[in-house]
Amino acid sequence: MAATKLPVSRPTEVLTVELGERSYSIVIDAGSLDDLGTLLAERCQPQRCAVVTNPTVGKHYLDRTLAALQAAGFTPLTVEIPDGEQFKSFASLTSIYDRLLTAKLDRSAPLIALGGGVIGDLTGFAAATYLRGVPFVQVPTTLLAQVDSSVGGKTGVNHPLGKNLIGAFYQPSLVVIDVTTLSTLPRRELVAGLVEVIKYGVILDAELFALLERDLERLLGRDESLLTQIVSRCCSLKAAVVQRDEREQDYRSILNFGHTLGHAVEALTDYKRYLHGEAVAIGMVFAARLSRARGLCSDETEKRIVRLLERAGLAVDVPHGLSSADIAAAVAGDKKVSGGKIKFVCVEDLGRTRFELVTSQEIARLAVHRGADSE
Amino acid sequence: MAATKLPVSRPTEVLTVELGERSYSIVIDAGSLDDLGTLLAERCQPQRCAVVTNPTVGKHYLDRTLAALQAAGFTPLTVEIPDGEQFKSFASLTSIYDRLLTAKLDRSAPLIALGGGVIGDLTGFAAATYLRGVPFVQVPTTLLAQVDSSVGGKTGVNHPLGKNLIGAFYQPSLVVIDVTTLSTLPRRELVAGLVEVIKYGVILDAELFALLERDLERLLGRDESLLTQIVSRCCSLKAAVVQRDEREQDYRSILNFGHTLGHAVEALTDYKRYLHGEAVAIGMVFAARLSRARGLCSDETEKRIVRLLERAGLAVDVPHGLSSADIAAAVAGDKKVSGGKIKFVCVEDLGRTRFELVTSQEIARLAVHRGADSE
Repeated sequence: MAATKLPVSRPTEVLTVELGERSYSIVIDAGSLDDLGTLLAERCQPQRCAVVTNPTVGKHYLDRTLAALQAAGFTPLTVEIPDGEQFKSFASLTSIYDRLLTAKLDRSAPLIALGGGVIGDLTGFAAATYLRGVPFVQVPTTLLAQVDSSVGGKTGVNHPLGKNLIGAFYQPSLVVIDVTTLSTLPRRELVAGLVEVIKYGVILDAELFALLERDLERLLGRDESLLTQIVSRCCSLKAAVVQRDEREQDYRSILNFGHTLGHAVEALTDYKRYLHGEAVAIGMVFAARLSRARGLCSDETEKRIVRLLERAGLAVDVPHGLSSADIAAAVAGDKKVSGGKIKFVCVEDLGRTRFELVTSQEIARLAVHRGADSE
Repeated sequence: MAATKLPVSRPTEVLTVELGERSYSIVIDAGSLDDLGTLLAERCQPQRCAVVTNPTVGKHYLDRTLAALQAAGFTPLTVEIPDGEQFKSFASLTSIYDRLLTAKLDRSAPLIALGGGVIGDLTGFAAATYLRGVPFVQVPTTLLAQVDSSVGGKTGVNHPLGKNLIGAFYQPSLVVIDVTTLSTLPRRELVAGLVEVIKYGVILDAELFALLERDLERLLGRDESLLTQIVSRCCSLKAAVVQRDEREQDYRSILNFGHTLGHAVEALTDYKRYLHGEAVAIGMVFAARLSRARGLCSDETEKRIVRLLERAGLAVDVPHGLSSADIAAAVAGDKKVSGGKIKFVCVEDLGRTRFELVTSQEIARLAVHRGADSE
């Protein structure tokens, strides 16, 4: 993965994710949305294409997106999916397929995801499977999608029995990140996205963690140059992980730090009480606690993690009312379970992790006995 | 791709399809079904797994399949899908997902397709997308699936607007072909599968074509040693094509010889009148005619193709009652259309092809004016 500066007036960051024939570029700056058409035209013939978005994002950015595509010679059609995690579904997928087929889009026509993680994952899975695969472009408009879901090729939909249970690994042809789109993001979602940023610091980059400790307020104030810098750093970190282990055979699962319990908490509260990042914050604090309880990390490391998340305004405790049995069952249903044991991501120090094999019962026990353990 | 003989009493053929990290073996012989468990255990830990089949195939081979898996330490569950092309659907896919999720099969558990092309394509797509991909094993029980759909990684389901419109490229971990399963295949399906065998002769292998001309009757009499030889040769030919162009960027589309018009004829007769291979036979004869009409191949080449298909008992004429407009519209809906022109596979000589850019109107005109053109 290489980072280069483009010779333009804005401080554009261009990362290349090196995955052989599936390599692609991530363009990051303030204002890049208006360059989408030009950037895409460098990669494929201007032609018909489809933009998938939701009304919340669409009302702010759809016109600019369509204008940018049209100016470069593309003829975009729009597919609108209602806003919300519950629409990351087979029904939405079917509505995308139907629209593309009715419009007779052929296998060279790009699908463009304009929105957050739901739109990105859904559109990516549609792109992976429509006519056995068409070019896919990500234009992530939430912090979470910018630093996490738009890099790495995980696509999919939810199933009534769980999130992201059906999907595919499918790399985009291009990712265009315009950090100015974060100006319209509700603060709660900005903070939830920040959890994944903090996660990169914890698992891979102590310097990033320290930078976040220092500049948290500037970041929450949406300073564009800081956002460009941070988003670019997170994308680089994630790209490096994905390059090493594209299909999550092993190493890539360090990115699941905080997600084992996070997913369980989301599921047990019906995906209503917490945003994904908020649940992961609880999971990260729990993972730090489990790591410290096993003697893998220091008290100080655990405390710095808890403190930064709390400063961002996040709740860090496992919600009351969840039983140990419920948690154990939810954790056992995780996709990452193999042979009854969970490969749990522990922290050793800021920027350093290790895997521990843990049973769902152990996790559940420690999760509900927070008080006793913390005394 | 390498062919080696295993040191066993039966004349087992083992081909290796070389696709880097996605390489896999095809084991071909009479009786290999009983070795399925052993062969699979060489590739993954014995564990829970799922066999997807239909009642028609299941009544003959499911018990043997389950016994072979159990003997090697696997714990198989069975998912039964009704028999028929109309069940290559989202509804069937959903029923597979639901079954796997309810049984909590994890991402290391193999999915085994026991059946023809419908079961193979459907199970392959389920394997490609369940938990973003699980190991996939093909046990094809029709001649068509043995020589065609089980090699090459195309998986998918039909959509109300057309066949195979939704799918993925996903390579199996193992293909086990037992030619004795062809003993229970209805003759009509054997002949339909033979069309794809003849196709390999036409596009890639004049020697195979001559062998078929010589031994057609022995083949239709299901001589096991000849079947093993022919199936193995076809798999080798297809594997070589797929190795050169896995995702059908270009060269692989020679395998679509006869399929442009074949698909249109299938669609226009509602997938009821013809089996896939029967429609492809009509399409192959048409492709030979178009090639000859353009001066690309000799009269003799066209005649040998027509004669061999007719000797196998196949109808070779475009059915009456299809209008030029219907054919043009059906052809224009083909996935392979790009920029309004179809990359049509023509034959130059037995074993040699070339692509020609042809419009759907040209195809339709020639297809309905058979009489006039043949005079």
